Amino acid sequence: MNTDSKDKILSGDGSRLATAEQRLSQLGITLPAPPEPFGIYAEAVRTGNLLFLTGMLPTEGREAKFIGRIGAELDVKTGRMAAFDKVTRIVRLGVLVATSGDVREHPKVADGASELLQDVFGKDKNPSRLVYGVASLPLGVPVELELIFEVSA
Amino acid sequence: MNTDSKDKILSGDGSRLATAEQRLSQLGITLPAPPEPFGIYAEAVRTGNLLFLTGMLPTEGREAKFIGRIGAELDVKTGRMAAFDKVTRIVRLGVLVATSGDVREHPKVADGASELLQDVFGKDKNPSRLVYGVASLPLGVPVELELIFEVSA
Amino acid sequence: MNTDSKDKILSGDGSRLATAEQRLSQLGITLPAPPEPFGIYAEAVRTGNLLFLTGMLPTEGREAKFIGRIGAELDVKTGRMAAFDKVTRIVRLGVLVATSGDVREHPKVADGASELLQDVFGKDKNPSRLVYGVASLPLGVPVELELIFEVSA
Repeated sequence: MNTDSKDKILSGDGSRLATAEQRLSQLGITLPAPPEPFGIYAEAVRTGNLLFLTGMLPTEGREAKFIGRIGAELDVKTGRMAAFDKVTRIVRLGVLVATSGDVREHPKVADGASELLQDVFGKDKNPSRLVYGVASLPLGVPVELELIFEVSA
Repeated sequence: MNTDSKDKILSGDGSRLATAEQRLSQLGITLPAPPEPFGIYAEAVRTGNLLFLTGMLPTEGREAKFIGRIGAELDVKTGRMAAFDKVTRIVRLGVLVATSGDVREHPKVADGASELLQDVFGKDKNPSRLVYGVASLPLGVPVELELIFEVSA
Repeated sequence: MNTDSKDKILSGDGSRLATAEQRLSQLGITLPAPPEPFGIYAEAVRTGNLLFLTGMLPTEGREAKFIGRIGAELDVKTGRMAAFDKVTRIVRLGVLVATSGDVREHPKVADGASELLQDVFGKDKNPSRLVYGVASLPLGVPVELELIFEVSA
């Protein structure tokens, strides 16, 4: 997410009513195919005004991808959620970073995801955040995202 | 959870209205005594239509048990929740696997819990899932489950 | 939290209606300045009757502090939430303990936080709890707290 692409959005028609889908489009983000399931679960579960997503892994098909892919993975989900146009904001963003030893820079990794979400949902809609280093992640990926959305009735 | 016991359920009276308690009974699962508390907390807290459970550990009394016990532990809680018959589905299943080094098969461990929950709540009620490898767990157990239930008013 | 300070509260005017802010005052707890943000997020997000807090780290300014500080950090947040006087209880307390190797005493660490919360919110308002050992935490701190509050309409 560079400054140019941000400016493109901010200098647009000024509407704050653009959908997340429209903003993704403005950012030039194309949504790849949805990930294949890695087990017995639902991609997302709605209860009342909350939508719980299954943990997001940077994968392609059934293969693990490197950390840079988490942005694209995030695009997919937020884009799909935007299509589900009742999403009003992200309530919780969890960033699980697979680390070994004395790592302290988790917030910088997390900011990569947070910046993209901010571009899509707006600065006044930043989520609460829980960031921590885990011992390992499914398929050997380096980062997993937890997302809880707020949706309108 | 073998295929036979699944078939027994699926070839039953066909009712999709059986309670989780009835399904547990059909599966031949007997509920052991509830676990002893390991600290200052509530077993479960309800707020609105959500019921947050304290993390589930495979324990017997105050002793840690091996991983195979997580199924039985899960039986206890889901059974108890079923008695609390307002439970309509599981919104979130978190599976925390204590791992060292390069483990990647977390989803397979998680599927053990997911299969049982699917047997109890039905295939159309799979929860969203968050699976990751932690450095260590209370009492040295190998797996901990996080559960958030949806309950009816 | 020593027994004397607890007694002081319990032998007070007996009112169960004291706000968390009043109880903190009775405990002689002074609220330090709020922590500086370590990234792109909101300190807390409310949705319906739930208030999701960003993970709490024992920090001072941008420096990590030792584990004993988690109590004071907790004071800050609960105090601030008490000012937000719609907080009725804590739904979820997550305690993430940075561990290496064979640690099993996570519940004792967690009880440090739980005791303080119990003093503030009352014994009948204990939260559900999720405790686990993580590989590392932001800034190298030894413990992080996850909190979800219930708030009144």
